[in-house]
Order: sequence, then C-alpha cells, then structure tokens
Amino acid sequence: MNVIDVAVGGGRGYPIYVGAGLLRRDDLFKSHIAGSQVMVVSNETVAPLYLDTLLTSLEGFEVHTKILPDGEAYKTLDVAESVFSALLQVPCDRRTTIVALGGGVIGDLAGFVAACYQRGVPYIQVPTTLLAQVDSSVGGKTAVNHPLGKNMIGAFHQPQCVIADTDSLDSLPERELVAGLGEVVKYGLICDAGFFAWLEANVDKLLARDPHALRYTIERCCRNKAAVVAQDERETGVRALLNLGHTFGHAIETGLGYGVWLHGEAVAAGMVLAAELSRRLGLLSEIDVARVEQLIRRAGLPVHLPDALDATQLMRLMSVDKKVVGRRVRLVCLKGIGEATLVTDYPPEAVLETLATRRTTVQPA
Amino acid sequence: MNVIDVAVGGGRGYPIYVGAGLLRRDDLFKSHIAGSQVMVVSNETVAPLYLDTLLTSLEGFEVHTKILPDGEAYKTLDVAESVFSALLQVPCDRRTTIVALGGGVIGDLAGFVAACYQRGVPYIQVPTTLLAQVDSSVGGKTAVNHPLGKNMIGAFHQPQCVIADTDSLDSLPERELVAGLGEVVKYGLICDAGFFAWLEANVDKLLARDPHALRYTIERCCRNKAAVVAQDERETGVRALLNLGHTFGHAIETGLGYGVWLHGEAVAAGMVLAAELSRRLGLLSEIDVARVEQLIRRAGLPVHLPDALDATQLMRLMSVDKKVVGRRVRLVCLKGIGEATLVTDYPPEAVLETLATRRTTVQPA
Repeated sequence: MNVIDVAVGGGRGYPIYVGAGLLRRDDLFKSHIAGSQVMVVSNETVAPLYLDTLLTSLEGFEVHTKILPDGEAYKTLDVAESVFSALLQVPCDRRTTIVALGGGVIGDLAGFVAACYQRGVPYIQVPTTLLAQVDSSVGGKTAVNHPLGKNMIGAFHQPQCVIADTDSLDSLPERELVAGLGEVVKYGLICDAGFFAWLEANVDKLLARDPHALRYTIERCCRNKAAVVAQDERETGVRALLNLGHTFGHAIETGLGYGVWLHGEAVAAGMVLAAELSRRLGLLSEIDVARVEQLIRRAGLPVHLPDALDATQLMRLMSVDKKVVGRRVRLVCLKGIGEATLVTDYPPEAVLETLATRRTTVQPA
Repeated sequence: MNVIDVAVGGGRGYPIYVGAGLLRRDDLFKSHIAGSQVMVVSNETVAPLYLDTLLTSLEGFEVHTKILPDGEAYKTLDVAESVFSALLQVPCDRRTTIVALGGGVIGDLAGFVAACYQRGVPYIQVPTTLLAQVDSSVGGKTAVNHPLGKNMIGAFHQPQCVIADTDSLDSLPERELVAGLGEVVKYGLICDAGFFAWLEANVDKLLARDPHALRYTIERCCRNKAAVVAQDERETGVRALLNLGHTFGHAIETGLGYGVWLHGEAVAAGMVLAAELSRRLGLLSEIDVARVEQLIRRAGLPVHLPDALDATQLMRLMSVDKKVVGRRVRLVCLKGIGEATLVTDYPPEAVLETLATRRTTVQPA
C-alpha cells in the first residue's frame, strides 16, 4: 500500500491509500470514521461485486446502504434527494460518515450529499474505476448535473480519506478502463512530460491491465493532483489547468445527453481539440499535436467530435461552463507536452474552426 | 446607518448595514458586487413592494430576477432547482452575485443556491422581515427543508454583506412582525439579560412599530449574533446555543406541515418548553419560567404546543434534529435569564412530561 497526502489547509488534509486488497482493510475505515453511523452509497453494478466485502470491513458500525441506478444520467438533484431521504428515514445524525463506493458518478453525487446533509457530514471515497482512482475521487470537488450544464450544482467538500483498491479494476469493463485513460493522459499533458513519455511507452501494458503499470499510473496521477489541489483548493488559479479538455468535453456530454459518451471519452476528444486549438493559436507545434492525438488514439479513445453535434451548438454549450468569466470562455491550452496554460484572449473563429474540422461519424463503445 | 462587522476568518468577514432607506443606497450594493451579473431572488409578496427600488440601485449591472411563491412550504430542493435553471438559462457565470430580497425563506433558499451554483457564487442578503433582519440573514447558515426535517439540506456560506433596510418593516403584516419577536426574545434569553429586561419594558413599543425601538432591537440582536458566529462559525460549540427553542420548534413546523405555524411562532413555543424543561431539570427557577412565558405571551406569541401534535410524535420528530449526536438529542436549556447551556444528560421522561403538559387548542394567526 502507498499513501499520498493531500495537504489542504485548516487541518483538513487527508491521505489517499492506493494498493491491492484495501477494501478488506477494516483498520483503514475504522481510523477515518468518527461516529457510529455509516451510510454506504453505491450503484447497481458495483454493489453486487464489492458491497459485501466493504460491509465486512465496516462491522461494528451501524451501517445503512443506498443503492442507486448506474450511470451519468442519474447524477441529478432528484437522485441526490433520494439519498437525503434515505439518511432522514434512518435517521442519520450529523456525525454519520457517508462512504461512496463506485466510480466518478457515485463519488461526485455522494460527496455532494455529504456536503449538504445537515450542512455537511464526513465522507470517504472508495473509488472502483480507473477514472475515479486517478482523478475524480481526489480533491473534494462534488457535484450533480443540470440538464443545461454538467456539474453545475455542487460544493467543495474534502473527504476524510480516499481508499483506492486496485483489485477493483479487475472487474472494470473495457470501455470504462479506456475512459479512465483519458484523465490519465491529461496529467501527462498538463504538468508531467516525463509521465507522458512513459505513457507512450506503456499504454499497451495499461490496456492489458498490468497491475504494476496500473498502480504506478494511479499513484503518479494522484501525486500530481494532490500537488495542484494543495496549491489551489478552490480553483482560483492553477487548479483550472486540471480542466484541460473539459470545457469541450462537458459540452459534448451535455449536448449528447449525459452518459451517451463517458466522461473520459469526452475529455479525450476535448484534449485533442485543445491541442489543435493551441496549434492554431501558435502555442503548440504540429509534432506535439500529433503526439497528443496518437497517444489518445492508441488508448482507444475518440479523437474527433461526435457527428451529432454541430460547431454552433457546441459553442453555445461551452458558454455555460464554470470557467466562463464575464462572457468569455477561459480555455486550457497547451504550450508544450507537460505545460498547460489558461487562454482568455483568443479569436472566437479559432475555436469555431477547430470545432468544425475535428468531426467524425465513429462513436466510442 | 449603523454598521456591524461579522468577523469570520479567512478574509470572509462582512458588514451588516442597518438603517432607514438602505434599499436606495446604490453605493452599498456597488461596493459589494464584483462581477457584472446579478440575479435577484425574491417572492410574490415582497417583489411588488421593493423590487423596483432595488433594481434602481442595481443600475449598471446586468440584472435578472427570479420571483418565487411566498412561504415556508416553498423552501424546497425543487424550488431551489428552479433557481438553478433560471441561472443557467441566462447563463450566469461564476462571478454572478445573487441578491436575496425577502424574509428568512428567501434568504435561506437563495443562500443555498449561491452556495451550490457552480460550487459557490457570492450573495447579498437584503432581509425585509424582522425575523430575517435580527437573525436569519446573519451568519451564513443556508438551507432548504426536507419533508422529514427542517433545514436538513444546506451549507455554511457567508454573504458579502447584509443590507437591512428598516423601512421595509413598515409593510410587514402584524403576524410576521410578532413572529420576528420570537427570535428577538431568544437573544435576551441566551446571552443578554439586560436586553431581556429592556424587552420587558419595551415590547409594546416594538408591537407599535416604534422605529427607534425596532432599530435598537435589530442592532442589538445582530451584535449578539455576530459575536457568536465569529467565535464558532460552523456550530461546533457555542453557536448551538442560538438554537434555543429550535429543536422543539422545528418538530412543530415539520409535524404541522411547513408554513402552518411561522418559524418565529414555533420557536417561541419551543422556548417556553425549553424553560419549562430547564425548571424540571432543576436549572431554572419558577420565577424565571414565568418571566419567559409572560414576555412571549405579551409579544403575542404562542406559549403552548399545537393540539394537533402529540408528545410521542414530537419526540420522534425531534430525533431527526441536527443537534442529535449518537442518538441523543442535545437540548439548549436555560440556567437563568441570559444564560443558556447545552444539556445532553437528562431523563427522557422530563422531555415527555414537558411536552405532555404544555398543550393548547389556541392557534396563532
């Protein structure tokens, strides 16, 4: 087991545990649960696989469970309300710990419920997908979607700890594994050129689920994310760079309907668009754009926009993004592999042209 | 105009402005709005009276409005979602300031929306009722109700400032004015014996809407609240004392259905119950219980429980309260006029007996 510390201020720092068999480590859970009540939030896909193991590790607590339908389409305020109802029906008190067992959707939604139930209760992230283990479970961003915009209703609320059991990746469907690689590539692109080069050499090992390669990847991504979050918990500065590909990606997800493309797929296509836009703005060389596209393609991820969305529609969807300030969409661009930058002052035509030329009829899945 | 500072940490301190004609003070609004977009949230009762004046003070900003139905029954997650939709339809960006124009319901709901929209945007409280001016607009507690419990979904989110225009009390219905006195009496009881004595001498002036008495009352309550909030923003200690009468009161509100009794009415009856319980526990003299009951009665507020709720039902409703820790309802009791204390270790029969003997068929309104 490896431990990575997320050094946020005000005594709210916490560890990320990464390793095999951690779901069975009752000592980890016990040392991060203060009260007597626990509410496990999971979904219909993950619960049959891992809930029993988790419940064994939670013996001695008063444990309740709330199992939700699986998928991004259920990351809504309505579904969050059903979790609030479950908590109140018990009733669970203000020292209850919520345990999020699942991927990014469960982590984001259960984290948001933890942020708001009785104005905030503690929670633990137990990510079971690659995407959640490398990215979404770390850093305290919680949210649900709104039909008009992704992650538009949410809160910053740091967990007590993150327990990433790498064994849970064994059961991960191929498409989910691949989607997770989208966020993995992101860390190489924004701040870790050495890791990007490592990925170019090792992406096939990851696709073959080599356990050492996976564990190395999870730890490296978490270290990168922990460093950024420690600097800028509330995204007033450098943390915005973690959104490389996300303004494009969120527009794809909202435009197609949540869950049609997985988040990691939309982010992957979004990063190719960001690279292409960076080239048009004179920030990135053609060679680097080709490297970005090639790695994402080799990972099995989309490098084009979905055909169902046209450029104008995407531009409109992007205007709702959280990175908009004063009607101007701030976009994360690349100045090189491993070096991201926030760009506000660009000709809108450059975005429109990028959107218009990067199209495909080939869909993921 | 008087200014009271709320000294919360991390550079999030803010002023409460109290005075006549403040709705017209565009300089106050301008100095607390950073972005260009403003969303005013108000209700169908308050908007026809004060929205135009407010809009004049907001000239120069891009202002949008969302008018909600009036009443505690609308302080729900569904109504909050309608405000999120209004924000996204514009679309409003992350620098948008939400302005809550109304009483406690509007302030709590709009504050909650501000806490969660794009993971947090700034907001300004413009309280128009006595209850909101003396209590609910100050301190950053935001929430919506759940059918199973009052204020169960919420966040701590401090406003940029509070602008309490005492002129808005001129239009306040009698019942709302009286309800506000419930929270006023609370400040005397928990920490300000001198103010309690002043209220005994001046409650008739307040009922007659004497402007000097009202302004003195608002300032004194705000000073008391600001001092408590500065010590304990997140209610880990002394702030819990501000909930005197509230565990009983919330049970009444939830049990009868939100809005049947006003919040201040339920809190008033709850404070008489708390005083009576304190007597049973040997903490408070009979003479002081009589003083509490007499002042609340003179203010025109209920001193008994509603007949529609029986003691067992109330006990069950109280068990959902946020002050419950480890199955034990922590109750705010009185050791004297102006001295509140948190009591956890008490015989449940004492509560049951208090609930059983304090009943009435007389309803407010």
